[in-house]
Amino acid sequence: MSVNFRLPGPTPLPPQVTEALGREMIAHRGPAFRSLYHETLRLARELHRTDGDVLTWAASGSAGWEVAIVNLLSPGDLVLAAVNGNFGERFARVAKEFDLDVRRIEAPWGQPLRPEALASALDEHGDVKAVLLVHNETSTGVTNPLRALAGAVRDHGALTIVDAVSSAGALPLEMDDWGLDFVFSGSQKAWMCPPGLLIAAVGPRAWAAQERSRYPRFFWDMKESKTMADQGMTPTTPPLSMIYAYRTALEMIASEGIENVWQRHRELGAITRAGVRAAGLQLFAHEGSESNSVTAFHPPEGVTASEMLAMLREDYGVEAQGGQAHLVERLIRIGHLGWVNEQEMGAATAAIGESARRLSTNSQNSAIAS
Amino acid sequence: MSVNFRLPGPTPLPPQVTEALGREMIAHRGPAFRSLYHETLRLARELHRTDGDVLTWAASGSAGWEVAIVNLLSPGDLVLAAVNGNFGERFARVAKEFDLDVRRIEAPWGQPLRPEALASALDEHGDVKAVLLVHNETSTGVTNPLRALAGAVRDHGALTIVDAVSSAGALPLEMDDWGLDFVFSGSQKAWMCPPGLLIAAVGPRAWAAQERSRYPRFFWDMKESKTMADQGMTPTTPPLSMIYAYRTALEMIASEGIENVWQRHRELGAITRAGVRAAGLQLFAHEGSESNSVTAFHPPEGVTASEMLAMLREDYGVEAQGGQAHLVERLIRIGHLGWVNEQEMGAATAAIGESARRLSTNSQNSAIAS
Repeated sequence: MSVNFRLPGPTPLPPQVTEALGREMIAHRGPAFRSLYHETLRLARELHRTDGDVLTWAASGSAGWEVAIVNLLSPGDLVLAAVNGNFGERFARVAKEFDLDVRRIEAPWGQPLRPEALASALDEHGDVKAVLLVHNETSTGVTNPLRALAGAVRDHGALTIVDAVSSAGALPLEMDDWGLDFVFSGSQKAWMCPPGLLIAAVGPRAWAAQERSRYPRFFWDMKESKTMADQGMTPTTPPLSMIYAYRTALEMIASEGIENVWQRHRELGAITRAGVRAAGLQLFAHEGSESNSVTAFHPPEGVTASEMLAMLREDYGVEAQGGQAHLVERLIRIGHLGWVNEQEMGAATAAIGESARRLSTNSQNSAIAS
Repeated sequence: MSVNFRLPGPTPLPPQVTEALGREMIAHRGPAFRSLYHETLRLARELHRTDGDVLTWAASGSAGWEVAIVNLLSPGDLVLAAVNGNFGERFARVAKEFDLDVRRIEAPWGQPLRPEALASALDEHGDVKAVLLVHNETSTGVTNPLRALAGAVRDHGALTIVDAVSSAGALPLEMDDWGLDFVFSGSQKAWMCPPGLLIAAVGPRAWAAQERSRYPRFFWDMKESKTMADQGMTPTTPPLSMIYAYRTALEMIASEGIENVWQRHRELGAITRAGVRAAGLQLFAHEGSESNSVTAFHPPEGVTASEMLAMLREDYGVEAQGGQAHLVERLIRIGHLGWVNEQEMGAATAAIGESARRLSTNSQNSAIAS
């Protein structure tokens, strides 16, 4: 049985990316690397819809929280963390660890953040330096209305820092048009690469903020990273295989066309949700804010996520994931981002339907028996 | 012409490692990853000669400077940076960036650090919390006498923090026997992997120091990393392909036998030095402290490193590297670490000999002509 690898990340690798990963080492200060890195960043800028900068680091996507903080802020700065899921929660926690003065605006998990509520919170809190946003909450399958949220932040004059780990490359994201200041993601989601590369797009107001930032920094220093990137290099040895892979993936996305990629994800999201509903299961995300990259739904009543995940894996070859935090056993999460097509999502939702039926029957039988 | 890839790093990948890099993604919270990561760390502990911990991060090797500082020290702490090359210099600079009170002990580039001098400096400076050491100076081809240096540090009661980027896995290094507290390296040198994985071995005194450390930290937090590693996981998504590769490389090294690997590097070092001397060229490292992983030598008189590197690359397929800092044009550096054998070093030194002869003749002719 072949595996239908449907985690919200890491996601499957296209054969072209696998091939790129296996390429030989080259001199990371030589002309071949310089041309590779220039071209990689050019494509990345294009796909982030920005004339600003894109930089990369050997790191996990989650390091983006720290990179944003130590480059754009200073200890004691007032920031507003917008939280409606586990990744927003973690971003807020990292901000606190770095001694920022963290205020929160929350929406219940499964609900989107409301731009009006954000605008009011900004008015209430006064001198907010930055708003910490998660574009697509991987923990709940909710896409926040980033464009409108960023508009509210901009009106207030604060920086918009965006965790786009499970959105960039899958969902519409317009760095410049939407006035985003710092947008980061990891290679292992819609970018169709293994984990290990952090990607950050940096706008002009973020560069201005860096001039004022007082955190000590070395590895994460984005000014040094830009100085070297402008010469087609990185301050420390770059993760060559990851750069080979990322450039190849970017070429594939550019060749499909980023708007076509967004449209494909819209269709994959719709197929997945239709399949989940047809299985009689309940989506977790509030209607209208369902993510087109990750779907979260409840297992049948009386059935734990673990039971359903095991059946999906063992009987249907579908590798999905449970919930996070208090929802560990109450949610199933399924990724439909990156290297994925309708057939695979059709097979996955068919497996979800069948296993829901079988598990419900089991669950009812044992309820009767007990 | 096939490439004889002789940078001091990145180094060539064995076919087994290339194969491992191309493996499919797996769930990073699932049983297959847990067993992979447990086994990887077990092998890494064995090859670091430690009963303590080994941890990994998606990062460049140079991030190890920062990881050591933010986990083991606090702003204002007195540290002694031992500097006899560019990497020691950079380690000291990072320590200063992180507001440590940095004192220096130096040896001229090309000379090793002297344990007696270190002992005197420690006595002179009093309450030194840690000594920052570079085991093998990649910039000069000098191996410092780590065991004796660490002995002096231990007598004083300070922590021994070791940059082993171009030594671990190539040169004898006994974490526990030598009383080292924190030893880090990057995947792209003797570990025969692409760059992108930071590896750190952590001893008991380092753990005690972490309890007192007051830096904010998230991504680099080694306690969180250990808590997760003990369960076969990582706090954030691990760089799966790099872990596949690293585990494979560790198995190869363990199967050759780490002492045999050290012996092979000793022989490769001797072959390289003999070849350089036979070419009539002058080694940069002081006699008795020459590195068995990286050799640095001067190009013929009147010849720049750039000229010789271009000839080596274009006419012989040998990819070598120039010097660093003030020695950019005055040194050629050649790596003989990791996936490399006698034949390759024989071919490289033959090319060095021939190009030295040709370039010297050119240089003399133009001297006569002018």
